[in-house]
Amino acid sequence: MESFTLEQLAKLIGGTPLGSFDQKISHLQDSRACDSSSVCYVKEKKFIDTLSQDAGAVITTKDLAAHITSTENFIIVDDPYLAYAKASKVFSAAYNEENKKVETKFGDNVKIGQNSVINPNCVIGNNVLIHDNVSIYSCTHIGDNSIIHSGTVIGSDGFGYAPTGDGWHKIEHLGGVKIGKNVEIGASTAVDRGALGNTVIEDGVKIDNKVHIAHNTIIGENTAIAGMSGTAGSVRIGKNCQIAGQVGIIGHIEIADNVTVMAKTLVTKSLKEAGVYSGVMPIQKHKDSLKFIAKIKK
Amino acid sequence: MESFTLEQLAKLIGGTPLGSFDQKISHLQDSRACDSSSVCYVKEKKFIDTLSQDAGAVITTKDLAAHITSTENFIIVDDPYLAYAKASKVFSAAYNEENKKVETKFGDNVKIGQNSVINPNCVIGNNVLIHDNVSIYSCTHIGDNSIIHSGTVIGSDGFGYAPTGDGWHKIEHLGGVKIGKNVEIGASTAVDRGALGNTVIEDGVKIDNKVHIAHNTIIGENTAIAGMSGTAGSVRIGKNCQIAGQVGIIGHIEIADNVTVMAKTLVTKSLKEAGVYSGVMPIQKHKDSLKFIAKIKK
Amino acid sequence: MESFTLEQLAKLIGGTPLGSFDQKISHLQDSRACDSSSVCYVKEKKFIDTLSQDAGAVITTKDLAAHITSTENFIIVDDPYLAYAKASKVFSAAYNEENKKVETKFGDNVKIGQNSVINPNCVIGNNVLIHDNVSIYSCTHIGDNSIIHSGTVIGSDGFGYAPTGDGWHKIEHLGGVKIGKNVEIGASTAVDRGALGNTVIEDGVKIDNKVHIAHNTIIGENTAIAGMSGTAGSVRIGKNCQIAGQVGIIGHIEIADNVTVMAKTLVTKSLKEAGVYSGVMPIQKHKDSLKFIAKIKK
Repeated sequence: MESFTLEQLAKLIGGTPLGSFDQKISHLQDSRACDSSSVCYVKEKKFIDTLSQDAGAVITTKDLAAHITSTENFIIVDDPYLAYAKASKVFSAAYNEENKKVETKFGDNVKIGQNSVINPNCVIGNNVLIHDNVSIYSCTHIGDNSIIHSGTVIGSDGFGYAPTGDGWHKIEHLGGVKIGKNVEIGASTAVDRGALGNTVIEDGVKIDNKVHIAHNTIIGENTAIAGMSGTAGSVRIGKNCQIAGQVGIIGHIEIADNVTVMAKTLVTKSLKEAGVYSGVMPIQKHKDSLKFIAKIKK
Repeated sequence: MESFTLEQLAKLIGGTPLGSFDQKISHLQDSRACDSSSVCYVKEKKFIDTLSQDAGAVITTKDLAAHITSTENFIIVDDPYLAYAKASKVFSAAYNEENKKVETKFGDNVKIGQNSVINPNCVIGNNVLIHDNVSIYSCTHIGDNSIIHSGTVIGSDGFGYAPTGDGWHKIEHLGGVKIGKNVEIGASTAVDRGALGNTVIEDGVKIDNKVHIAHNTIIGENTAIAGMSGTAGSVRIGKNCQIAGQVGIIGHIEIADNVTVMAKTLVTKSLKEAGVYSGVMPIQKHKDSLKFIAKIKK
Repeated sequence: MESFTLEQLAKLIGGTPLGSFDQKISHLQDSRACDSSSVCYVKEKKFIDTLSQDAGAVITTKDLAAHITSTENFIIVDDPYLAYAKASKVFSAAYNEENKKVETKFGDNVKIGQNSVINPNCVIGNNVLIHDNVSIYSCTHIGDNSIIHSGTVIGSDGFGYAPTGDGWHKIEHLGGVKIGKNVEIGASTAVDRGALGNTVIEDGVKIDNKVHIAHNTIIGENTAIAGMSGTAGSVRIGKNCQIAGQVGIIGHIEIADNVTVMAKTLVTKSLKEAGVYSGVMPIQKHKDSLKFIAKIKK
């Protein structure tokens, strides 16, 4: 695996190295999981609390670096999120190269329909059934007995960009997708790969058609998600939940075990207690709706 | 077609046979349509009213069986829905075998794009146009002059599982999809097959992109459904309706002829009268929305 | 290119010619852009203000024709929109023939995944990356450095039909899709072609998974649209906007530059001022939602 010195990497992403300029860095990782041969980024003070004690180096601002005691190796930048986007590009070449080199492993009794594409560096378990016209990107693991319906896409890049004065800077997605056993995913659903680390769908999860699972979402065992629902990035859903159709879940939200969210509700805050939640305007004759809307606006 | 005795089937799904143990059963059917060589299930008392008078046998509880007079053949179980799920698995082997054996029939002047997959045991009418990368499962009928756009999936399994103490038990979908004449279905839409019986799209229906039509939905003639709308299972929409974009329709709802549902409305009850319906929060400057939400919560 | 006389075309669409019966007409165009060898339609008085001064002929009613002074060539009909639908069919044969004849042009360093279909008469810029199972219809332009993820469909017909007493009359879509440079489009997204003229996605736009961009929508530079959002036809979104997930935008709406629309909001009116907009019912415990709904209905 290609590696960079702290000094080389700082140059590539337009930052200033601090500490051991010769420190070898071979991966970009999430700040909670960063190991001694990797770099991560910290863009706000709150992320220092959960920062790995073992990080090889940290991309951050001068101010934030003053609060980080677990390492002395930094790349100092004005905008850590943009610097992270640039670093993701630096490490993506090696990531893509590695993916091309590793053959996909197939378990016993795997059935794959027509025109489905399974890219290299995947692991497909025993008795997996993949229907027609399915697209599976590299770094996808699918557990035993799972079923993927037609038109579904697993492992596409998450929707992540750093804002710049001149448009959006793409964040290369260097994670994967980990799907457990006895999972079923419906038709025309999309599951994005993780930015760093994996998007995770645990054992026994059932996902309907046209669902959107964003990067780094984690869905707990035996949770069911009905048609046209979607999560934004880094959502965490507990076990045995029932998410009805057309539900939306805002980024970084956590949902406890045994939560039911009724159809079309937008989940805008973490749901820490089991129970049934909803939030939808009632359907009425349109003229009655108009009266109600006029009242709201007063 | 493979058949089972009442006794054999009872054993396979973990129930107790009652009546003629040698009764031959070759199909699993909906309780309203069950014929003398088939079995159906009854999970609630209300379904006894519409139970076929000709059912070969009924999977149900001991209590419910006491109210059924049209047959003396039962498989007695604690959980009829779970037993039905198990029975669907029993009958799916023959169903799948039959589907593989029957060649798809194509009418005159059918045009099929690149990389579209049409599985066996379908019927494609005259002058049908199927664009690229379309996925059509077995048991799909498409009427004359209909058009299917790219990326669309017809006939995927519905989202049906029986709950168990240990996750979800898949219901095998043994029905099909029946699409009428002069129908147009947009890009990346999904139409699920029926669980028992068909999902039906009648003549002249127009469906936009990214629509989700769940199992056993019936859509009446000349109804139009705009982008990103979806139905849950067993919805029945009348003729000449206009369903705008991002509408959701809860399972088992009936919508009369000539109903218009405005964009993003959730239809939570049957609409028995023609007319225009809506139910959506008005868009406002976000600070005004926040004030309104604060008021609701008081 | 095949052309028709005013008299021939009038006969084909069931109207009465007025003016120079021998006027040659070779295209059907939008009323604002119609040139001297083309025909357009005017269905309401308000469209006369923006009618091209150079139109070869106009399909309209007798009453509206009396207000149009820039041409003397008309096809007089009772229902201009239906007549336009019929005219779109007349011109579609030549349009489709032309599309088949022109080879797609590929820039340098274009990467195309497996089972992606690129129809003729497209232009694909330099360094474009198209993933697997993508469907691209004719008349699609993709600018340099743009990325299209798996399962996405570009150029499908818009959802346009003229109502008749006997169902819907399809409007053939004779435009295309113009995608700028540095655009990224996620997985399972659909971008419809223009009815007349193009659907336009300007440079630097980022579109997430499962988004629906309807015919003749124009999206300004560097605007980002998150998952499962959609536009209806002829929407115009400004530059540097942020449209969150599951947002809907009603047809013909205009959104100014630098507008943010929060998740799941339905945009029912033009947003002429930069700022943040929202309109969503808050999520609550379901029993609290029920109380609120009961209050609304009183």
